[in-house]
Amino acid sequence: MTALDRPRYKVIGTRPVRHDGVDKVTGRAKYGGDVRLTGMLYGAMLRSPHAHAKIKRIDTGQAEAMPGVRAVVTGQDLPDQGDRIVELGEGATNMRYLSSNVLARDKVFYTGHAVAAIAADNIHQAEAAAKAIAVDYEVLSPVLDVRGAMADDAPILHDHLRTTSPTGETETSDTPTNVATRLLHEKGDVEKGFAEADVIVEHEFETATVHQGYIEPHAATAHWNADGKITIWTSTQGAFTVRQQTAELLHVPLSHIKVVPMEIGGGFGGKIPAYLPPVVAMLSKKSGRPVKIIMTRAAVFQATGPTPGSWIRLKLGATRDGRITAGDATIAFEAGGYPGSVIGAGVGCLFACYEVPHGRVEGLDVCVNRPRTTAYRAPGSTQVAFAIETVIDEICEQIGMDGLEFRLGNAAQEGTRRVDGPVFGCIGMRETVEAIRNCEHYRTPLEGKFRGRGIASGYWFNAGMRSSVSASVNTDGTVSLIEGSTDIGGSRTSLAMQLAETLGITAEAVMPTVADTDGVGYNDVTGGSRVTFATGMAVVEAGKDIQQQMVARAALIWDVEERHVHYTDGSVEGPDGHRLSFEELAAQQMTTGGPFVARGAVNAPGQGGAFATHVVDVEVDPETGKVQILRYTAAQDVGTAIHPSYVEGQMQGGAVQGIGWALNEEYWYDETGDLKNATFLDYRMPTCYDVPNIETILVEVPDPAHPFGVRGVGEVPICPPPAAIANAIHQAVGVRMRQLPMSPPRVLDQVMHTQS
Amino acid sequence: MTALDRPRYKVIGTRPVRHDGVDKVTGRAKYGGDVRLTGMLYGAMLRSPHAHAKIKRIDTGQAEAMPGVRAVVTGQDLPDQGDRIVELGEGATNMRYLSSNVLARDKVFYTGHAVAAIAADNIHQAEAAAKAIAVDYEVLSPVLDVRGAMADDAPILHDHLRTTSPTGETETSDTPTNVATRLLHEKGDVEKGFAEADVIVEHEFETATVHQGYIEPHAATAHWNADGKITIWTSTQGAFTVRQQTAELLHVPLSHIKVVPMEIGGGFGGKIPAYLPPVVAMLSKKSGRPVKIIMTRAAVFQATGPTPGSWIRLKLGATRDGRITAGDATIAFEAGGYPGSVIGAGVGCLFACYEVPHGRVEGLDVCVNRPRTTAYRAPGSTQVAFAIETVIDEICEQIGMDGLEFRLGNAAQEGTRRVDGPVFGCIGMRETVEAIRNCEHYRTPLEGKFRGRGIASGYWFNAGMRSSVSASVNTDGTVSLIEGSTDIGGSRTSLAMQLAETLGITAEAVMPTVADTDGVGYNDVTGGSRVTFATGMAVVEAGKDIQQQMVARAALIWDVEERHVHYTDGSVEGPDGHRLSFEELAAQQMTTGGPFVARGAVNAPGQGGAFATHVVDVEVDPETGKVQILRYTAAQDVGTAIHPSYVEGQMQGGAVQGIGWALNEEYWYDETGDLKNATFLDYRMPTCYDVPNIETILVEVPDPAHPFGVRGVGEVPICPPPAAIANAIHQAVGVRMRQLPMSPPRVLDQVMHTQS
Repeated sequence: MTALDRPRYKVIGTRPVRHDGVDKVTGRAKYGGDVRLTGMLYGAMLRSPHAHAKIKRIDTGQAEAMPGVRAVVTGQDLPDQGDRIVELGEGATNMRYLSSNVLARDKVFYTGHAVAAIAADNIHQAEAAAKAIAVDYEVLSPVLDVRGAMADDAPILHDHLRTTSPTGETETSDTPTNVATRLLHEKGDVEKGFAEADVIVEHEFETATVHQGYIEPHAATAHWNADGKITIWTSTQGAFTVRQQTAELLHVPLSHIKVVPMEIGGGFGGKIPAYLPPVVAMLSKKSGRPVKIIMTRAAVFQATGPTPGSWIRLKLGATRDGRITAGDATIAFEAGGYPGSVIGAGVGCLFACYEVPHGRVEGLDVCVNRPRTTAYRAPGSTQVAFAIETVIDEICEQIGMDGLEFRLGNAAQEGTRRVDGPVFGCIGMRETVEAIRNCEHYRTPLEGKFRGRGIASGYWFNAGMRSSVSASVNTDGTVSLIEGSTDIGGSRTSLAMQLAETLGITAEAVMPTVADTDGVGYNDVTGGSRVTFATGMAVVEAGKDIQQQMVARAALIWDVEERHVHYTDGSVEGPDGHRLSFEELAAQQMTTGGPFVARGAVNAPGQGGAFATHVVDVEVDPETGKVQILRYTAAQDVGTAIHPSYVEGQMQGGAVQGIGWALNEEYWYDETGDLKNATFLDYRMPTCYDVPNIETILVEVPDPAHPFGVRGVGEVPICPPPAAIANAIHQAVGVRMRQLPMSPPRVLDQVMHTQS
Repeated sequence: MTALDRPRYKVIGTRPVRHDGVDKVTGRAKYGGDVRLTGMLYGAMLRSPHAHAKIKRIDTGQAEAMPGVRAVVTGQDLPDQGDRIVELGEGATNMRYLSSNVLARDKVFYTGHAVAAIAADNIHQAEAAAKAIAVDYEVLSPVLDVRGAMADDAPILHDHLRTTSPTGETETSDTPTNVATRLLHEKGDVEKGFAEADVIVEHEFETATVHQGYIEPHAATAHWNADGKITIWTSTQGAFTVRQQTAELLHVPLSHIKVVPMEIGGGFGGKIPAYLPPVVAMLSKKSGRPVKIIMTRAAVFQATGPTPGSWIRLKLGATRDGRITAGDATIAFEAGGYPGSVIGAGVGCLFACYEVPHGRVEGLDVCVNRPRTTAYRAPGSTQVAFAIETVIDEICEQIGMDGLEFRLGNAAQEGTRRVDGPVFGCIGMRETVEAIRNCEHYRTPLEGKFRGRGIASGYWFNAGMRSSVSASVNTDGTVSLIEGSTDIGGSRTSLAMQLAETLGITAEAVMPTVADTDGVGYNDVTGGSRVTFATGMAVVEAGKDIQQQMVARAALIWDVEERHVHYTDGSVEGPDGHRLSFEELAAQQMTTGGPFVARGAVNAPGQGGAFATHVVDVEVDPETGKVQILRYTAAQDVGTAIHPSYVEGQMQGGAVQGIGWALNEEYWYDETGDLKNATFLDYRMPTCYDVPNIETILVEVPDPAHPFGVRGVGEVPICPPPAAIANAIHQAVGVRMRQLPMSPPRVLDQVMHTQS
């Protein structure tokens, strides 16, 4: 679609002030920690000091006798889950693992693993009592990295664990293992493909465990009422997901739980698992009082899901004229203390930017003594992009081809079959490469010593899933929009704008509210870049419901047949010049047929997928190894940018997080498995002093699956940065970095090694 | 409809535990006064010590300088309303009157009239500062009763006021008056009717000003946000009505206001006007902080709407064989300090129980120096029932006819045209009289000295109006019902039961939530006995929306045509024995087409009307005049009793309030207009020591306007008691009481007068 035949929108593409803006800048917005209830108790948790140990005994007697203590819970208080596998919206989940991650039962699997929780009259009493719980551990050797965990003599985390094979069967071997799952996708004939290659590059890569680093720590408050109904106030990416997780963990009907979503201070995938809600609920049940727990920052690092560190072996072949012939890879992701990393996504993303005629990719989900990993912005994709995008750079170097030309020549497009099976619909990979090729940044030569420019592309699936909304027309010509999607990146406004566009009114005339789980239909998590797409579809459906009701009402008022009445551009028009604007019909609703109320619900299909291509200029200090980002431009297929400012914000935020992965961020464990940098001072995230302004190019290839062509935009901008920076470092100082983060010591080491 | 051909229901007619029961009995339910917000200020009000005075000057200087004071508002802070008449859901409202009743401008019209409000850091500072506001009054003579107010030399409350005539025109006379409105309804030829009468009885009656006496005082908290959006937390019978009143009073768009309805500790019509919300909103705007005000009990009595005291002249004619031939009446209601009593309802109810071939009724709305009156349970009907039902008793005495036979012979029925115009549909007046005639109480002779039995009937219109709901099906087979009707008498459950019946599931499987004004479509007040009827219709509509979606989904799953699929008795059935229960489809929704969400909205027509007939046995102590209620039975046409316990509760509560009107309750003013009994100790309401168990007979004449035949039940039980008790007193001691309350001194006075 070109600019000429693109629909002309009135609201979409404008930049109204966000509906929740004033609340957030004035401090009025209420976050998870802001909940205060009458009679509320404060909770504290006892966490494991060991990375791997058996729990022989927990003695809570002394703690229970301490002043102000009202309740104590341990893993024994949670219902036994047996071998239940439950579909939790985000996928099939082993309930035993989920439960014992919330409160350990027989073993602890990482430093900081929750062992017990206390509720007391104040936080000081609770913390003192938590320390007074005596736990008798039998300390075991930990294993902290995937290759160590796959070694024959590795310490075994779960004695019963056997590998689930690519066919979905569980191996019947008697040999204990830490490898929970082995995935395998094959396309074409890989041997034949490599035989056709003129150049083959193969390397191993490592990426670090990194945390989402949201500012707001996890916080939850629960009240278990005398009638068995439970209310939970928490910051979460998915109130309905918390509801279901808690229901399944506590064996109560999900409709007995109401989750009130508070404002969220960042999530990035890390606020999907319910760590605290089941704990505060049990403490409330035991004490009869509301109970609140706010995690410490150390607990957030130690015990809430980072993204998997990884080991990747990648072999890629291409012809001399720049055509990929074959790819072969093995990817091992740290699952953390329990099986269930995002390995499936990593496997799917590895080759997705390209037409790879012959491919094979194996994925391994490996348990290690680190916190249970979870989603983090395009989960699994940044790791694999680091591998493939640097290998492509090396191939281009060998065949003497420009990296953008190579990417254009191999770009996935409509009809391309991915190595893992699916066939792409309308996508914009090629357009993002062209956008970089044409941009001022790329066309400006980079000069200076120890400077280099790198490019890289990235891919994210973009999810669909379930969303519901309702809406109510007010007599003053406004619409109350009731939705259930946590607003992380401005979705109140991007959804309100879609309703406004549908009805032909202003964005300000739509007032969005994020309701609790009793106040709106089901919504899957805010994640996977799905909300503006899928909840947006539900919003458009609700808007059409209003249109249809207004048409029927106008026909009634005019006493004409409904088929002669139409909703057009903010008005209802009928025969004989009859016309009533939205505002006029809204004003008349109460004295005619009654209130206009509407609903929309979807189980949205997957989207067309998001692609991004980034270019970065760096300068490397050869004496310290420090990499300075000089300039950064991100081009991305954003489908249709509903609110361009928020799209740009997602691209900038994603790029900065990717820069953090690239240069500094990592979990730093000592040999006992103790995390040594569980603070924001020591876990080094980029600040505004570390990055230039991230320039953005919005490429709009509308997704035909959505009425306005929306494409999720939040995930993919994190994928290219590590590879792009690695490629830039190579151009700057001639070294190939294959391990993240590319922190000063590592870069210095490589530079010195090359010079020597 | 007889018991045999009546529909057989599974849920309707059963008595499940109310959904909000545990919260209320454990003290967890949050009422208006329970709101606590960060940084919240506490407010206090300065009220007029005079019943009638000009405000010459208000000096807030000293108060503003006092410790902790953050804001002061007076009537000058409210926008000028000019002569705006606004349709406020409950009827056309003069905004100047409403505004100056909230905060007086130039004059005060009753003791306790609000003059200024203060917000301070704590309630003690606020109260002290309120006292420090200096108001310079020019005290005027008050007039406290309707007849005094209509006298030629009466003090005039509003110099500009002229009477609105029955044709709706305002008189152009230059003579000031306190009579705001004169209504007139005529039917047939009244002179001719009285000429046909064998017996004519004519008397004058007086009823006292009485208060609804809800336990919870008015309370409101507001936060005026920096973006101009206002949130109000308050106990109210109509959150949307508070929203609109406040918007109109403050000249802000109604969609800028969100009203969060708290639980309500009684309303009975008295929690419809917004006394506090505009005040706390203005205090919040000025202070930038949330502000809460809770009224004192004295303020509730002095300044919130009681029901009008009245003066009634009634003349009724009948033939010797007990046929009413004509009626003629003049009814004057105290409006209070501003025009706008419920005189229209009183006029409509007077003759409504009977076929009156020739009738004339004149109504007068008269301003007096008492608080602005408002609705109170069957507003206006109890006053007029006292008149007509005692006159009928006297006619029956004169013609020697049994009161029930007389009522049966004259009972209004389908097709009866009321004197005020409308024609009745299907109603059950006759059936309530028959129910009393057949009941054990009435068939048991009353024996003993100074004992008497009385009967009386009563009528209430029952309102329809606007209601909206939405609903969401949960995967565990339950339904979240989102409604906006304040739950005063168990409507969460009576609505949930209607949805359960529609869907063929249990009442417990429906979980009702009363949402705020941003969370659900428009709903008129909980009042007029309209909620179970009108909101019930919206609920049934939402249920049918779910049925239709489930039918479509099942057709999709079975791959059959939708027209071959039907929803029956909690299941969807299709061809070839296909069948999925509600629970099965609910469980499958997420993996098929997505969530089931539904909506319903109505502008419901008026109902068929409610009728009641009561019988009471009393014993009069001739030495003190004290009347003891020995036994009481209420029969009422309840349409279809959704939850019989709550219907019985409404009948019992209404009867007890009517007993209060009958025997004790009244506003006691001294000659200066100072209310001397503004406490629950001195304003004597019946307690459980004063009344026996109220026996109830549920007569079910389904209303064809409602899918389940619902008829409002909350209002009419208050109407018969004063007349029934007066008739019983007559039988006991031979005196005719024509003034309420029939308190011991008055009864004693009459008894001694008769004996002398």
